[in-house]
Amino acid sequence: MFGPVVENLVAQLTRLPGIGNRTAHRLAFHLLRASKEDALALAEAIRLAKERIGFCSVCGNLTEEATCEICRDPRRDPAVICVVEHPVDLVSIERTAEFRGRYHVLGGALSPLDGVDPSDLRIDGLLARASSEQVLEVVLATNLTMTGEATASFLAEQLRSLVRVTRPASGLPVGADLEHADEVTLGRALAGRREME
Amino acid sequence: MFGPVVENLVAQLTRLPGIGNRTAHRLAFHLLRASKEDALALAEAIRLAKERIGFCSVCGNLTEEATCEICRDPRRDPAVICVVEHPVDLVSIERTAEFRGRYHVLGGALSPLDGVDPSDLRIDGLLARASSEQVLEVVLATNLTMTGEATASFLAEQLRSLVRVTRPASGLPVGADLEHADEVTLGRALAGRREME
Repeated sequence: MFGPVVENLVAQLTRLPGIGNRTAHRLAFHLLRASKEDALALAEAIRLAKERIGFCSVCGNLTEEATCEICRDPRRDPAVICVVEHPVDLVSIERTAEFRGRYHVLGGALSPLDGVDPSDLRIDGLLARASSEQVLEVVLATNLTMTGEATASFLAEQLRSLVRVTRPASGLPVGADLEHADEVTLGRALAGRREME
Repeated sequence: MFGPVVENLVAQLTRLPGIGNRTAHRLAFHLLRASKEDALALAEAIRLAKERIGFCSVCGNLTEEATCEICRDPRRDPAVICVVEHPVDLVSIERTAEFRGRYHVLGGALSPLDGVDPSDLRIDGLLARASSEQVLEVVLATNLTMTGEATASFLAEQLRSLVRVTRPASGLPVGADLEHADEVTLGRALAGRREME
């Protein structure tokens, strides 16, 4: 209705995750209404990011340098490596301020149905790191989804002979009531029960 | 955490309407993971849209030409003009396929609190068009919000002497039940009741 240029903008926005046709229209009209400077700032930010950002050669995290900020930080404990699927998961863990070790970003989870097999993930690099004497523990913090759980099992198998392998506790989230907890979560919470201190 | 280039991309995405910090991160990581070609296609679509898209000199709709597709379409009835706040509202009306007239896009709604007064909207152009002998009716399809209603009242005042002025029916939406209808909507639906056919 607005010609190919607007339609193309809407189509490109629709390709973003979680952006449907209606939202894409709203975003497109916002950009068309915004000052030229503001709209072009977004276009330039995308271009610059694609040009400058690569993957850390050690852990696979996003970085502008050869290695990422966390791998370069001497205050981070090199004895513990936390394995995550995506950089966004790393952000979530960093927000908790509970973890002071290093990371390893797989780049996804094993999913034979989607054609993701071990060679598509950064697994060789992880095994190499875990073989180093410096590393004492690998925390497998993949998602608690089918693919995340399968990936954790697969990695545990490979890593067990090299290093201590752990997984974050699974159970009832803070603020939950038992009445509304799903049975799998509640079952895990019971199976993983701990002495009260 | 990922350096200024990623932070800047996230910041630019956060400026879009309805995009919070978490969603902006998700979108940014998606763009960083996408192929360079795909990500740059979005940047280029934004740049091209800002360069090529302007406002129709007749109705204020978005267009790549001097006048928009609808104003150029000889099959659209020039006797009826539908007034909307934004181009996105025009899309909603076009989707209904109920309206075969032309449009006039105000570019917003009167809102003294936000500093939007009549001179900020395309009102002079509307009055000029409504003065033409060709135009028989103006449909005021501004939003049913405080500002949209105020704008409709203001325009009706100016237009009444020139042309027939109408407003889309206000009442219960299709699929609504009375139990959950808000009292203003239900009151309007009653006040606007019509003979059953």
